[in-house]
Amino acid sequence: MHLFTSKFVQKPEHVTELPGSVSTPKGFSASGIAAGLKKSGKPDLGLLVCKEPCASAALYTPNAAAAAPITFCRDETSAVALQGVVVNSGSANACTGAQGLEDARTMAALASAKAGIDVKNMAVASTGVIGVPLPMDSVESGIGIAAEALSDSGGGDFAEAIRTTDKIDKDGAIEVALSAGTVRVGACAKGAGMIAPNMATLLAFVTTDAAVPAGLLQNLLKQAVAVSFNSMSVDGDMSTNDCIMVFASGQSGVAVDSGSGDAVLFGDALAAVCKGLALKMVADGEGATKVVELNVTGAADDDEAALVSRAVSNSSLVRTAFFGRDANWGRIMASAGAALAGEPALLADIYYEEVCLAKGGAVCSDPVEAGRLEKIMAQPEISVTIDLHRGTASHTMYFSDLTHDYVTLNAEYTT
Amino acid sequence: MHLFTSKFVQKPEHVTELPGSVSTPKGFSASGIAAGLKKSGKPDLGLLVCKEPCASAALYTPNAAAAAPITFCRDETSAVALQGVVVNSGSANACTGAQGLEDARTMAALASAKAGIDVKNMAVASTGVIGVPLPMDSVESGIGIAAEALSDSGGGDFAEAIRTTDKIDKDGAIEVALSAGTVRVGACAKGAGMIAPNMATLLAFVTTDAAVPAGLLQNLLKQAVAVSFNSMSVDGDMSTNDCIMVFASGQSGVAVDSGSGDAVLFGDALAAVCKGLALKMVADGEGATKVVELNVTGAADDDEAALVSRAVSNSSLVRTAFFGRDANWGRIMASAGAALAGEPALLADIYYEEVCLAKGGAVCSDPVEAGRLEKIMAQPEISVTIDLHRGTASHTMYFSDLTHDYVTLNAEYTT
Repeated sequence: MHLFTSKFVQKPEHVTELPGSVSTPKGFSASGIAAGLKKSGKPDLGLLVCKEPCASAALYTPNAAAAAPITFCRDETSAVALQGVVVNSGSANACTGAQGLEDARTMAALASAKAGIDVKNMAVASTGVIGVPLPMDSVESGIGIAAEALSDSGGGDFAEAIRTTDKIDKDGAIEVALSAGTVRVGACAKGAGMIAPNMATLLAFVTTDAAVPAGLLQNLLKQAVAVSFNSMSVDGDMSTNDCIMVFASGQSGVAVDSGSGDAVLFGDALAAVCKGLALKMVADGEGATKVVELNVTGAADDDEAALVSRAVSNSSLVRTAFFGRDANWGRIMASAGAALAGEPALLADIYYEEVCLAKGGAVCSDPVEAGRLEKIMAQPEISVTIDLHRGTASHTMYFSDLTHDYVTLNAEYTT
Repeated sequence: MHLFTSKFVQKPEHVTELPGSVSTPKGFSASGIAAGLKKSGKPDLGLLVCKEPCASAALYTPNAAAAAPITFCRDETSAVALQGVVVNSGSANACTGAQGLEDARTMAALASAKAGIDVKNMAVASTGVIGVPLPMDSVESGIGIAAEALSDSGGGDFAEAIRTTDKIDKDGAIEVALSAGTVRVGACAKGAGMIAPNMATLLAFVTTDAAVPAGLLQNLLKQAVAVSFNSMSVDGDMSTNDCIMVFASGQSGVAVDSGSGDAVLFGDALAAVCKGLALKMVADGEGATKVVELNVTGAADDDEAALVSRAVSNSSLVRTAFFGRDANWGRIMASAGAALAGEPALLADIYYEEVCLAKGGAVCSDPVEAGRLEKIMAQPEISVTIDLHRGTASHTMYFSDLTHDYVTLNAEYTT
């Protein structure tokens, strides 16, 4: 499976793609099985573990209606020494009250017992419909089967089991050449709807056999998420269940220390992996036919750059125009102007790829090669730049178009 | 035409509907003609004037990419003594630079000369595609024809000429029984897409023959807009051209003074008219099949109530669920929780009409009459309440569902 399928993410030079997934780095085993939670009978329960102690990092959704597994992980597991995670799809275990929290605890207890690790180090994640209690009989028997199935080639099965409405795979593995030696990173993610910036979005799990201290791992994760999962939008909705976890087994014997050149190289690789996965999420956004890279430049400060880029990325009118292959720059200007309500007249330039469509807030009179704009709007990946001419800050967002299939999927995906 | 077609707006007891429109109050004449701005050949230019001095009030979009007519009205016309407005559809005269502003000035100059009123008292409004310069030859000849056509029965024609993608009429007239006598109010509005709260939304024009001082009129307008146009959402997008104007001719001879009981009665009537128009806008929202009243109660303060109600109203997932007739309360909880990110666990109750679906943040176990929920979800107007249990503040929003027709309309409505 490939992580670098978008023109908007570059594979760093010191990174080589490997066949594999989350169980590719040394020390990890994984499995994915059908526990009967999905009506379709598809795989719906995954287990990922490292038998030996790990350093870990995690980010959880700040949603005030956070699901039970999020509350459980945040409040009752180790923040720095997670060794595994049990994940189910089919039900989000969100808005399920005290019973939901008890069910999350039970999942962790069962999985940690079967895997032979401390319950404090076993995380839980769920995805699916909100407000429906987990069928714990199925979950319990499923965890037993998943534990039996654990293998160092089970990463792909794990990745498959955590999907819901995803249509394309979102996992892979890389080798990272550091000065101290070579380490491996595996990763997978799940997400196609209820995706918005400003959070660790949906489910993503990263493994590595590098020896990275937990504090450094947390910092590198935050940096990686800022330019990837937190800079993308499918529909502007923030889920109750979003989380990303990184597990570092150290079993390559290669240490990555804080402040070292290898920390930078490892961080770059982690960011590239997260960006690759995030762009796959956007490309696989519910109903999406296009990925748009929106570069907001010339903002007064970082907050303004983020504000404008998020507003435009979440605009239904902007997103529908891309579905219609309509270079409707006026909607981008209107949305940016709305985000800057009360500010002086917006004299922005807007470019679709290299073509200038607006200059100084008004229509641009530069000649455009015949057919060039139609060609751009037909691309599966389109880069758009809006220069606000208010300062020097910038922010880049990635978003998908709003389509008939999005409406169909979400009108029919039922409670 | 009827103003009170929604179950969510009550006609006040002292108000009687009249056949008529914006030219029904004494002193006003109006017209609407085809100037050739719309390719369809439909009416696209309207003129509304009072020959005698008026008191006026207006609210304009705070969008930083505000259109030329907004900039012109805000900066170059009287804020308190407007006597008329010339409106075109087909082109928004937005993002049109210095030429656009000049064109707005020219429109005002031509219309005021033809109507025989001071240019300072002639407002301009435009709606349509962004970024396209106005065809001023057509506009100029159109203004001449519209001035010739002015009549006290021309209000309906004016209302028709300002529409773009609207499918239902949005105008009407009422008689208001005040203690000092009877006055009339006429009103019309335009809007089906690019509609969001936090502004004087799209185009709305109100006339009255009550004698209301401009300061009082502005206060009453702000109050009316807060509970109507600023509490609705079709797609969360704020236009570059939104404005609402009220003209008071005083020709009924009935004075409405600040602090009087009649000021309250007149304000109630104005608010009911604005709410009636706003609900028609939501019902006619692009592609809409449903209007949802969302009552957020139990918020910590007014800002929080507004924040949560706007977040839920703008959620693509929530709005798509209503199109699918799916009582997917989990998406409402998730959206409210996202708006309250970082706050303690949200233990909200959610009701669809009288049916409790969530209690204390989790699924509600109250029995529901068989078929009741299906019946509610099939209603064209649905009332939903979310009690946050965080305080005593509340806010009500009105929004439409997100449908295939919205996508079709906005993918095909082209620059």
